[in-house]
Amino acid sequence: MQKDRPIGVFDSGIGGLTVVKALKEILPYEDIVYLGDTARLPYGTKSKEIITKFAFQDARFLLSRNVKLIIIACHTASSVALYELSRDLDVPVIGVIEPGARAAVSLTKNNRIGVIGTPATIQAGEYEKAIRKYKKNVEIIAKSTPLFVPLVEEGWVEHRITEMVIKEYLQPLKEDRIDTLLLGCTHYPLLKKPLQKFFGDKTILVDPGYQTALEAKNLLFKEKLIREEKRISLHRFYLTDLSPNFKKIGESFLGEPMGDVIRASLQEE
Amino acid sequence: MQKDRPIGVFDSGIGGLTVVKALKEILPYEDIVYLGDTARLPYGTKSKEIITKFAFQDARFLLSRNVKLIIIACHTASSVALYELSRDLDVPVIGVIEPGARAAVSLTKNNRIGVIGTPATIQAGEYEKAIRKYKKNVEIIAKSTPLFVPLVEEGWVEHRITEMVIKEYLQPLKEDRIDTLLLGCTHYPLLKKPLQKFFGDKTILVDPGYQTALEAKNLLFKEKLIREEKRISLHRFYLTDLSPNFKKIGESFLGEPMGDVIRASLQEE
Repeated sequence: MQKDRPIGVFDSGIGGLTVVKALKEILPYEDIVYLGDTARLPYGTKSKEIITKFAFQDARFLLSRNVKLIIIACHTASSVALYELSRDLDVPVIGVIEPGARAAVSLTKNNRIGVIGTPATIQAGEYEKAIRKYKKNVEIIAKSTPLFVPLVEEGWVEHRITEMVIKEYLQPLKEDRIDTLLLGCTHYPLLKKPLQKFFGDKTILVDPGYQTALEAKNLLFKEKLIREEKRISLHRFYLTDLSPNFKKIGESFLGEPMGDVIRASLQEE
Repeated sequence: MQKDRPIGVFDSGIGGLTVVKALKEILPYEDIVYLGDTARLPYGTKSKEIITKFAFQDARFLLSRNVKLIIIACHTASSVALYELSRDLDVPVIGVIEPGARAAVSLTKNNRIGVIGTPATIQAGEYEKAIRKYKKNVEIIAKSTPLFVPLVEEGWVEHRITEMVIKEYLQPLKEDRIDTLLLGCTHYPLLKKPLQKFFGDKTILVDPGYQTALEAKNLLFKEKLIREEKRISLHRFYLTDLSPNFKKIGESFLGEPMGDVIRASLQEE
């Protein structure tokens, strides 16, 4: 049956496991095939052209695993390659940008939204475009925060250096009294605690990965592709490069052990 | 003529331009072809297998440009792939590890050497092996410092956060009274100033890139492959991905404008 096929998720690395974590919570009976392109990470510093090429290779790998839906968990790839993938592939494709933007628009009260992400995500400006589609009259302050990913991967989450880096990057957003902050990178949900501490309780942190999992549920329901019978689901993790570190960090993103991780070799063209 | 051929230098990204900077100073009449594999950087977090595969692809690209000597400017690739490249290629290949290790051994007075680098370089332990080859009776303290590369790329060189990260990582090396510190990553020479400030004037910082340029000169001289006539040399820069950021950071490493940068597409096998 069509609906018995797994959901495919890809990311430039292991950060997309924060999206898998949300999917498991919201769609507990769905099988998931995850591909992390750890051999070529990060995407966030690379050009639109090369990111699009990589995204197609990642998507084709998932299609060869017979997925019924592809989720681009990578913000950079969602920013630059969602349109091309949606147009050219035979299964629905969703990225993390639209669901994140929609949630931010519905949550802001003072119409001041902050967006943080990698340099490529911020330069692409897709979050701004998506937000403006839903609401014209909103102030958006976007800031790239390139040190957040290495800090998370170093495990320095509740650490005074991380607190200082947050202040260095985000003081202007605080002074601009944003009430909603879009966490525009899969790694950033791990920084929720120090970010919330910096901004205070009244600022809402939006995790687009979580919103995307909600969107996936709606889409599967609408298309009659959702699995509703209670079952133990299968989650399979492929990485294009295996390094012990990836698994360690990956499990902190997923919130539980990953089990066997399989090395995938992508078709280059 | 054999000696008229250029020197080939490759790196996972743009950091190897610190080696080109040293080469230009020490071998001013040599042409240089530089390849930075920016589409797949960094190598430092990836596995030995994949790094070796990438290193062969990089080297073959340089050979197709008719180089007379290949310098692996990347510490990670030097750590894991020098032996295989030297064995399989028809031109001499030198890495940055041996020249760096030799210099450290000759400079230390108290026989306490510190080594810093990416996780892959430190785990490979090639600096330790190389140091011990020249001197058994030496204490080596190795520490991976994964945040240094993103800090340099962020341009936070003389910055209080960088000073704090240096202290966080390197306080144990200071307490252990090392008198020589091997900068085991191409990006680290840019941190010389804050590192020297942290350790004090008596600690010698060894830049393996500079030592490698000296080694290249010796080798070319010995093999009668050196260009001695005064001339304006050509330096050509290839990157596997072009992003405006790479050029900006690259020029800070090279210490001068890069001119035209050409996009290279590597043969995948």
